[in-house]
Amino acid sequence: MTRKTGRQFFSNPGPTNIPDSVLRAMNRATIDFNDPEFVEVYNSSVRSLKALLHMAEPGSELFFYTASGHGAWEATLVNLLSPGDTVLVLESGYFSEGWAGMAEKLGLVAQTVQADWRRGIDPAAVEAALRADAAGRIKAVLAVHNETASGMAMSMPAIRQAMDAAGHGALLLADTISSLGSIPFRMDDWGIDAVVGGSQKGLMLPTGFSFTAVSAKAVAAHAQARLPRSYFDWAEMAKRSHRSFVGTIPVGHFYGLQESLRLIELEGIDAVIARHHRLAEATRRAVRAWSGNAGPQLYGLDPARLSDSVTAVLMPDGHSADAVRKTAMDRFNVSLGGGLGKLNGTVFRIGHLGDLNEPMILGTLAAVEMSLRINGVPHGRGGVDAAMDYLAA
Amino acid sequence: MTRKTGRQFFSNPGPTNIPDSVLRAMNRATIDFNDPEFVEVYNSSVRSLKALLHMAEPGSELFFYTASGHGAWEATLVNLLSPGDTVLVLESGYFSEGWAGMAEKLGLVAQTVQADWRRGIDPAAVEAALRADAAGRIKAVLAVHNETASGMAMSMPAIRQAMDAAGHGALLLADTISSLGSIPFRMDDWGIDAVVGGSQKGLMLPTGFSFTAVSAKAVAAHAQARLPRSYFDWAEMAKRSHRSFVGTIPVGHFYGLQESLRLIELEGIDAVIARHHRLAEATRRAVRAWSGNAGPQLYGLDPARLSDSVTAVLMPDGHSADAVRKTAMDRFNVSLGGGLGKLNGTVFRIGHLGDLNEPMILGTLAAVEMSLRINGVPHGRGGVDAAMDYLAA
Amino acid sequence: MTRKTGRQFFSNPGPTNIPDSVLRAMNRATIDFNDPEFVEVYNSSVRSLKALLHMAEPGSELFFYTASGHGAWEATLVNLLSPGDTVLVLESGYFSEGWAGMAEKLGLVAQTVQADWRRGIDPAAVEAALRADAAGRIKAVLAVHNETASGMAMSMPAIRQAMDAAGHGALLLADTISSLGSIPFRMDDWGIDAVVGGSQKGLMLPTGFSFTAVSAKAVAAHAQARLPRSYFDWAEMAKRSHRSFVGTIPVGHFYGLQESLRLIELEGIDAVIARHHRLAEATRRAVRAWSGNAGPQLYGLDPARLSDSVTAVLMPDGHSADAVRKTAMDRFNVSLGGGLGKLNGTVFRIGHLGDLNEPMILGTLAAVEMSLRINGVPHGRGGVDAAMDYLAA
Amino acid sequence: MTRKTGRQFFSNPGPTNIPDSVLRAMNRATIDFNDPEFVEVYNSSVRSLKALLHMAEPGSELFFYTASGHGAWEATLVNLLSPGDTVLVLESGYFSEGWAGMAEKLGLVAQTVQADWRRGIDPAAVEAALRADAAGRIKAVLAVHNETASGMAMSMPAIRQAMDAAGHGALLLADTISSLGSIPFRMDDWGIDAVVGGSQKGLMLPTGFSFTAVSAKAVAAHAQARLPRSYFDWAEMAKRSHRSFVGTIPVGHFYGLQESLRLIELEGIDAVIARHHRLAEATRRAVRAWSGNAGPQLYGLDPARLSDSVTAVLMPDGHSADAVRKTAMDRFNVSLGGGLGKLNGTVFRIGHLGDLNEPMILGTLAAVEMSLRINGVPHGRGGVDAAMDYLAA
Repeated sequence: MTRKTGRQFFSNPGPTNIPDSVLRAMNRATIDFNDPEFVEVYNSSVRSLKALLHMAEPGSELFFYTASGHGAWEATLVNLLSPGDTVLVLESGYFSEGWAGMAEKLGLVAQTVQADWRRGIDPAAVEAALRADAAGRIKAVLAVHNETASGMAMSMPAIRQAMDAAGHGALLLADTISSLGSIPFRMDDWGIDAVVGGSQKGLMLPTGFSFTAVSAKAVAAHAQARLPRSYFDWAEMAKRSHRSFVGTIPVGHFYGLQESLRLIELEGIDAVIARHHRLAEATRRAVRAWSGNAGPQLYGLDPARLSDSVTAVLMPDGHSADAVRKTAMDRFNVSLGGGLGKLNGTVFRIGHLGDLNEPMILGTLAAVEMSLRINGVPHGRGGVDAAMDYLAA
Repeated sequence: MTRKTGRQFFSNPGPTNIPDSVLRAMNRATIDFNDPEFVEVYNSSVRSLKALLHMAEPGSELFFYTASGHGAWEATLVNLLSPGDTVLVLESGYFSEGWAGMAEKLGLVAQTVQADWRRGIDPAAVEAALRADAAGRIKAVLAVHNETASGMAMSMPAIRQAMDAAGHGALLLADTISSLGSIPFRMDDWGIDAVVGGSQKGLMLPTGFSFTAVSAKAVAAHAQARLPRSYFDWAEMAKRSHRSFVGTIPVGHFYGLQESLRLIELEGIDAVIARHHRLAEATRRAVRAWSGNAGPQLYGLDPARLSDSVTAVLMPDGHSADAVRKTAMDRFNVSLGGGLGKLNGTVFRIGHLGDLNEPMILGTLAAVEMSLRINGVPHGRGGVDAAMDYLAA
Repeated sequence: MTRKTGRQFFSNPGPTNIPDSVLRAMNRATIDFNDPEFVEVYNSSVRSLKALLHMAEPGSELFFYTASGHGAWEATLVNLLSPGDTVLVLESGYFSEGWAGMAEKLGLVAQTVQADWRRGIDPAAVEAALRADAAGRIKAVLAVHNETASGMAMSMPAIRQAMDAAGHGALLLADTISSLGSIPFRMDDWGIDAVVGGSQKGLMLPTGFSFTAVSAKAVAAHAQARLPRSYFDWAEMAKRSHRSFVGTIPVGHFYGLQESLRLIELEGIDAVIARHHRLAEATRRAVRAWSGNAGPQLYGLDPARLSDSVTAVLMPDGHSADAVRKTAMDRFNVSLGGGLGKLNGTVFRIGHLGDLNEPMILGTLAAVEMSLRINGVPHGRGGVDAAMDYLAA
Repeated sequence: MTRKTGRQFFSNPGPTNIPDSVLRAMNRATIDFNDPEFVEVYNSSVRSLKALLHMAEPGSELFFYTASGHGAWEATLVNLLSPGDTVLVLESGYFSEGWAGMAEKLGLVAQTVQADWRRGIDPAAVEAALRADAAGRIKAVLAVHNETASGMAMSMPAIRQAMDAAGHGALLLADTISSLGSIPFRMDDWGIDAVVGGSQKGLMLPTGFSFTAVSAKAVAAHAQARLPRSYFDWAEMAKRSHRSFVGTIPVGHFYGLQESLRLIELEGIDAVIARHHRLAEATRRAVRAWSGNAGPQLYGLDPARLSDSVTAVLMPDGHSADAVRKTAMDRFNVSLGGGLGKLNGTVFRIGHLGDLNEPMILGTLAAVEMSLRINGVPHGRGGVDAAMDYLAA
């Protein structure tokens, strides 16, 4: 195998770059999870994570799992719902499809509010679907705050408003796996009942734990929920001293979490969000420059909804996204995200979340621009220049 | 907080010591799990792990999860069984209780073959229970190969023999979480249909993934199993290129796994097993010395069944195991395992599995002996001497 | 302090980027330098380093020091020369000045062949100086193969030829601190008597050891040399089992050296050299683009001598190199080298040696281009584009 | 090669165990030594090190070198003395011999006050030697505070007193390489003019830097000193912004130093010293137990002078220290120090300094006791028991 030199530019939208200091914090011998030293690390991580979630409601709970984000979604569904319950899934892309499929497999009925993946959901359609549910069969609304596959974000306040307008009492479950720590998120203010999050995106950690933040209303719903559960059972967790996890705890990840949250607090969450916006906008300007000459274009069509954590790029007809990705990797050591599900081969994705700065995104954009050229993909020149013009302003 | 100096002696029976080279291997930037470099690491880890399991049957499968051992047990049950199925749980201690409870929560019926925790199961009782199941309600037998809580191992061949003698077709599910890589284990030869394992014991890794090794017979049973499942669904996994995991993969753990399996292969599994036995026997000789003068004694009463990965020590009446543990930790920076469930406070446990050598176990035993003295626990002197006599022989 | 996000782009010409795998290799507990495990690591490192030096002459020696490159120069002088000896220093820039000054401080006479730093030495002048030394006072010629301060390399074969043409028997001492592992170097073929090298440049290690590779002729000269020495005394080292070091050995660095040499061998030294040339040429094309519109220009004026490991950039009059560097650092987390000695403030330097790839150098060039703009430095646009055009060709 | 399992017990008296958090702190990408982040780390390290030295005299200086302790001794001599100067070396063992030899090689005259290595120096003999120097030829007294080779410490106040009593103005140079951070040391109070220290003993770092702390009187002497010097020249260093180092700075080591000094401050230097005494005393009690039955004995004969950082053990006639060391290493993964110089083969040494706790030293002592037995060395039993009795008291 030939050696790839230098540091890989990991421009996938998740898992994401891990800051060196987080790797350092995790690089440690085992510790008993009941050791007071660990309990302090754990408790301080929980406090900081709640602050990041803007979660302070009395009676709310935060449950962790040794699991990926998919596990946290399963945990959320089995703890809140009963066999045969209907959930209203707001279509956003590959992941909303996935959660609908998961709900069905777990014995729920998934009703979908359809949407064009390139435009995103219409809150009025959500309101209409809820109004139509006179019988109250819908027990929960499932929304993906930031759809990694399409590079589009959804306004959670607008969804909340639609639910309130419909006067419907369903729980609002939001997937913040690829948004938390990157774009604004406010659990309490937005009236979200269950927030599903993971370690490996904006929290800048390796895959290893995921969690659900649960409102007091959802805690009450949990008491009535009858889907079978054990590994993910919140009631079981609530009996344990850490009030989380069934089984052993991935202690190293909490040393990492403490550090990643310290980094976010040191920079300031507002600055973090502003930086994500700045680097995302630079990326979009590059793509718009490339889109000239019948080149690749932004997958998302509604500028107001373009995600600040990932940009999905749609290839011109007849050109392979994976060929571009392969060139970027093999020749320039840059890892781009591929198209998911039905977007496979026609879309590639540039992650710009987590531990990132200007030269990192510019190096990535330069690799993309060169890879387009090398693959003979028609495109407007000057993408990197456009990004630089914006970033130097 | 006062500083604990030196390296902590982590003498818990799990999670266990992580070799420095494993920590180093895991201390790395993120990589895409579809990157060919990672795929090579992944595939080589799978090959080595199958070799360690002595698992080569055609049609068998190995499924991984981002989860702890509890998650792997849930995965195993939901993939193999249907609502209302009966499982026969062989009582061994705290963990067999746990799996019985889990089965009930998931909608199964758990029938238990009772046993004295200090003596272990009687295979004849297993055979009898199976013979009594004329209706064939029992679909699976659940056995904990090595019961971490009691420090007792169970003969899996004896269980297999009992099942064969009864002519019962139930699946045999074995928990090797605290045995694999420490004491002999042979999946194919012993006719085990599903092996549940985790990363954080004999594999010497942090908590982070767990797995089920599945026989061809169990693969067939899976096709009929109707318990709801999604995150742990083997059918879903089988569609993916890694044939494991739903969702993102904890890539760093596989760099660690590759290294820990390399270490085991370098030492040789027979040498690893012999070393575990040697250090375990040294520990038992120390405990037997202490047991003089009405001191603490080995919890397990059947010498043939004492575990080579953990020793459970029963305190004399009126003396607290946790006081001894606290002294060991606060004064000597030695972390001992506590008593689980009904053994809480009366038992402490010395882990001697994984990355361990003679001075490590002797340092631990010395700390225990001093802690007994400091706490005024009656005991025979010379425990460390007895261990040294054995180890120097 | 505000947090700098993402990985710093360390574009200094030394110390240089350390590959992650080298950091990992060094991240280990202490080992006795007489431990057979270490001796194996040490010996394999020595073998690989000799191969990289193209050093195979019988009777030659390789001596290591716990010291930086300055220490290795002192070691080389005190082991080869006697009080009052004359050394002929070939002027190349800041570092040739430094070695001349060092020679004087150690009791030698330093005679300098002057040269324009922007054009480099004239071999004919070297030949003339040696021919003029009828008395044979000159005992050694001191040449800096790659002058980090000016970004100019010197043809060592041309110097060797000049010495041969003059028929002068002086030793040829070459400084390869910033060239070895980046541009071609052949000790034996080029007739070099002492090669001075260090850990922290092309060998991609932290500062910590340096070395002299000594020809058989120089070994003989050492026997006659009378400058006082102890810490750096080769005779003392030759008595020790490692034939290097007076005092303790920095063991961790040799684990790192073994790994960095493994990386070089894996890539292949020819590929390493070609990569350095490619990234250097991309950098020069960027600078040439900027030089339009009375902008910054390449400091070196002889294109044939421009270094492939570092590019020195001369600012237009009235503009501060340090202001550009400060912007690159504060706003873009890019560390550039400053001007050394008389070049301070008017020159900045872009290191492009060691563990580097295309997006890394492009990210750096983008940061420089933006920093020029932000500081109102006149310059031609399109530097990054020019580099991309070259790299995508 | 067979695998050594578990963590090696590194019981050498230097280099020493490196705390995991120090390794972590050093495991980082390169940083420019002029980067403000590094300057802060550097300055805080200097402040803490001065505090540890009890060094606060106005006009005093602290100079660092990329070098081992031998380099720091050379630096100290060449900066303070002139060719032909006489130094008075106080014999303590292998290292005092070494410094005398170094002085001679550098062009000084070394006059030795002889002493029995097993009993240590007689301060009256020092006073006598100085009184005899009516001509004032002696410019400096060289004392090894803690002689690692013999396991004996010297009372620096007693030496100071002897010098004062003689009314002699020589400089007092003290080697604290193996004492600082382990046993009490007070530069100002004890009137020491130059303190030579290194990174790899009580400071718990890898080999990589060493230093001299210089009193105001010695700073004045430096101005007159005429030994040739360049790499170690304090005058050159004083011109640089860090006031230390000629050439590049080993930045990683200062991240490590900051951490190791933080650990010492967290524990408290008095507690550190008390811990060293406790673990040393336990070691001595073990050796005294072994010395029964014509077994090995403490090399040092004056109990008041036995070092708290290292214990030298003298083998009974006809038994090899190295055979014991080899067994300890090959069979128990315990690294012991060998006998230095004339003690080679007859003495082994147990380091008990730096990052150490009770079970670590007890594990080491157990390995030694078993290795004595395995090698058929006569010895009294119960060494570990004696140490435990003391430590549990």
